[in-house]
Amino acid sequence: MTETPDLPGGSGLPLEPSEADLHDLLTRASGFVEDLVSGLRDAPVSWPDLDEGLHAEIRATIDEQGGSFDRGLSLMERGLPEGFNTASPGFMAYIPGGGLISAGIADLVACAINRYVGVSPPAPGMVEIEWRVVRWLCDLFGYLPESRGVLTSGGSMANFSAIVAARNDRLGEDLRGARIYVTDQAHHSIRKAARLAGFGAEAIRIVPRDERLRMQPEALSHAIVEDRRARLRPACVVASAGTTNTGAVDPIEPIADVAREQDLWLHVDAAYGGFFQMTKRGAASFQGIERADSITLDPHKCMFLPYGTGALVARDGEKLRRAHMETADYLQDLDLGEETIPNFGEYSAEFTRSFRGLRVWLPLMLHGVAAFRDALNEKLDLAEHMHAALTETPGLELPWAAGLTVVPFRVAGEPDVANAATRQVLDRVNASRRVFFSTTTIDRLLYIRPCIVVHRTHRDRIDEAIDLIREATGAVHSQK
Amino acid sequence: MTETPDLPGGSGLPLEPSEADLHDLLTRASGFVEDLVSGLRDAPVSWPDLDEGLHAEIRATIDEQGGSFDRGLSLMERGLPEGFNTASPGFMAYIPGGGLISAGIADLVACAINRYVGVSPPAPGMVEIEWRVVRWLCDLFGYLPESRGVLTSGGSMANFSAIVAARNDRLGEDLRGARIYVTDQAHHSIRKAARLAGFGAEAIRIVPRDERLRMQPEALSHAIVEDRRARLRPACVVASAGTTNTGAVDPIEPIADVAREQDLWLHVDAAYGGFFQMTKRGAASFQGIERADSITLDPHKCMFLPYGTGALVARDGEKLRRAHMETADYLQDLDLGEETIPNFGEYSAEFTRSFRGLRVWLPLMLHGVAAFRDALNEKLDLAEHMHAALTETPGLELPWAAGLTVVPFRVAGEPDVANAATRQVLDRVNASRRVFFSTTTIDRLLYIRPCIVVHRTHRDRIDEAIDLIREATGAVHSQK
Repeated sequence: MTETPDLPGGSGLPLEPSEADLHDLLTRASGFVEDLVSGLRDAPVSWPDLDEGLHAEIRATIDEQGGSFDRGLSLMERGLPEGFNTASPGFMAYIPGGGLISAGIADLVACAINRYVGVSPPAPGMVEIEWRVVRWLCDLFGYLPESRGVLTSGGSMANFSAIVAARNDRLGEDLRGARIYVTDQAHHSIRKAARLAGFGAEAIRIVPRDERLRMQPEALSHAIVEDRRARLRPACVVASAGTTNTGAVDPIEPIADVAREQDLWLHVDAAYGGFFQMTKRGAASFQGIERADSITLDPHKCMFLPYGTGALVARDGEKLRRAHMETADYLQDLDLGEETIPNFGEYSAEFTRSFRGLRVWLPLMLHGVAAFRDALNEKLDLAEHMHAALTETPGLELPWAAGLTVVPFRVAGEPDVANAATRQVLDRVNASRRVFFSTTTIDRLLYIRPCIVVHRTHRDRIDEAIDLIREATGAVHSQK
Repeated sequence: MTETPDLPGGSGLPLEPSEADLHDLLTRASGFVEDLVSGLRDAPVSWPDLDEGLHAEIRATIDEQGGSFDRGLSLMERGLPEGFNTASPGFMAYIPGGGLISAGIADLVACAINRYVGVSPPAPGMVEIEWRVVRWLCDLFGYLPESRGVLTSGGSMANFSAIVAARNDRLGEDLRGARIYVTDQAHHSIRKAARLAGFGAEAIRIVPRDERLRMQPEALSHAIVEDRRARLRPACVVASAGTTNTGAVDPIEPIADVAREQDLWLHVDAAYGGFFQMTKRGAASFQGIERADSITLDPHKCMFLPYGTGALVARDGEKLRRAHMETADYLQDLDLGEETIPNFGEYSAEFTRSFRGLRVWLPLMLHGVAAFRDALNEKLDLAEHMHAALTETPGLELPWAAGLTVVPFRVAGEPDVANAATRQVLDRVNASRRVFFSTTTIDRLLYIRPCIVVHRTHRDRIDEAIDLIREATGAVHSQK
């Protein structure tokens, strides 16, 4: 072991700490985590100010001799309140998730064992664990044994690999005149995925939506026929199972019919909504999803896992594999021929990456599937409850039913005035630091869009949120 | 909190455990990690057998009611020996890394805080920490303030984003006739990145190498001129700063001259070798690397971090950003205009992903830069020592000096006989379960290529490896 010099002020902790030092690090990290979690209920959800001194201190870290763990934890502690607390029960902006501690424990173990899981021979036991998780994801959508999937860093990479698989399967290497169909409510990562995969901006064709912001299957069909007549090459349609804006779910069954008739790859972006498939209400709204060629899921959303846990499943695993597989001489010792446990690197844009399987498997294994289903049903109930309460609130407009657990609302009225008032309501509610919402714009109207997904969010916080919204709406109206 | 039913046999641990349960989980996970690390020195490096019963048990996990943490840890414990132990001091196959425990502690904390770091406003303090790390990476190569970078899941994604940036900057949306120049020693992820980014297979042009397996700058220049004459569009050259096969370093300075003259994007794949820039020997062999437009680095290799930690730095940050940036209505509340702390999602193929910054920052901050430099110098010394010892070993052939810390060797003789004998030496050495090597093939000759990078590998294990190689070589020769 190369020892660092024992300079004054620096802990100079060796890369491999002694048993006593390792024990001490783990104990203090555990204490930090325990304090953090127990404080989540009462901590402010957001904090507007930046501590410039702290930022200067952070920029001055990293030096030759090293520093103490206490210093590191103290910088963390001071930096954490800044911005907004995505782990808080009051966080309902964007698409939250919360972050299960059991996944953090899995990550600690995964780092310590540091096994290579890109292909199966180096760690068959660990890859079997990951395969168990991926199989469970495939089963959730009734995919047959030939289906496969990969765990990704998030929805963006899952959507990217789906676009690459669609491209490889339907277009080969020639991208000219290709067309991918989405509505304007699709997540921006689809547009980005297409760009990354080499498509020009014109490859994305926007399909009209209905009054509930869902793709119109007839309009999709017409667009494809029109494009074929113009000698373009329709290749892929992307439906959303829960849009980020409003939680809208595209009508998957009729879209799957069009995709089959017109020979298009059907990708369903279920990054936000996918896990509601575990619930009766969710599964009913996703009818036909088992016919999708590929589905994006984000366990860091509706499985409450920490950020950095996405997934892509593909109905025909071989198509995913053919789009991603490469070989190399230095891998020749590994028996990668006959596949008993998948070599996930062959299905993925990544090769070496972390053992994500463990952070999905341990929570599923420990809490059980019922715990997740129950929590998702609770969130659906909470969204319906909030929707009903806000519908009864004078001065607010809710043009749509709750989209899964998104409850978009606005101050009623003409755009110019109403948008400003809606923004004022948002600012007042967020200033409470008890809840935190974000907005979106649809057809030039500003909407606040509470999204209820943190596993720590329960009825008490939702009722508090409703009160805050009513108070703020009253105050903004009385100002007029 | 939705409670899971308290079914017999299942722990039914709630998604948010009680304080006592959380303390218990953390204590037992810490104990598991402590036992694991203290056992690494004596545990077998590899294990040929699979426990079929265990695999069946793993496939039977995940049910409605959940199971106990003890069961989870016990399945892990039984599955871990299978394959080979990439955290062991005896692991010298492929490109190892070891896995610093301090990074695992960072991951535990990162999961618990679960902050969103894709853009800076949600967590300015945490993104400042990540930015400190990225700045340190840029500084390592003398990059100026306009440089930027991203932390990725590994080298494959870093190389992919580099190819996308080169494509966007030099070709725009039109990929026709594009050419990317590499040698046949480049990592397969370059070929894969080009495919993922929409290039056809013909876009990769192989440039001849010299007798030390390094790109020939004159041959590169000729190839480009020839391609331009054929109305093709030379766009990018990828040099290696430490190939995976042999650790060969392409002559970066003259390649940078050609790239400048011919207006090509110069990407340096330093996934394996990059951090040797911290050492005098490494920096001397990478002369000119500061002129690269982009550099791939893998902290999970020569910074000894756990798998899942790659990086890409770009000399002109704006070029990286323009190639990756997208916007969306639902992000309108975030002030992403003036950049004080980078919005890393704008520079990356990813959007939501884990807080990788912490797992690089905490080890650097805690151990200090000197600890890493010293460890890398130690590994360079060990490689030179092994090279000298094997050169003196009768019957072995070492055609090249150690490439950074890769020491390729083979049994001397005609390919047919020698390749078989080399494979026998490998099998004998690996059967010791004290060290583990892998092979590669270059010009039809099989080479064993020890790669010394695990931070736990010291002189005692290298001397043991040398003895094992000598013994095996003697035994194989005496069989003839």
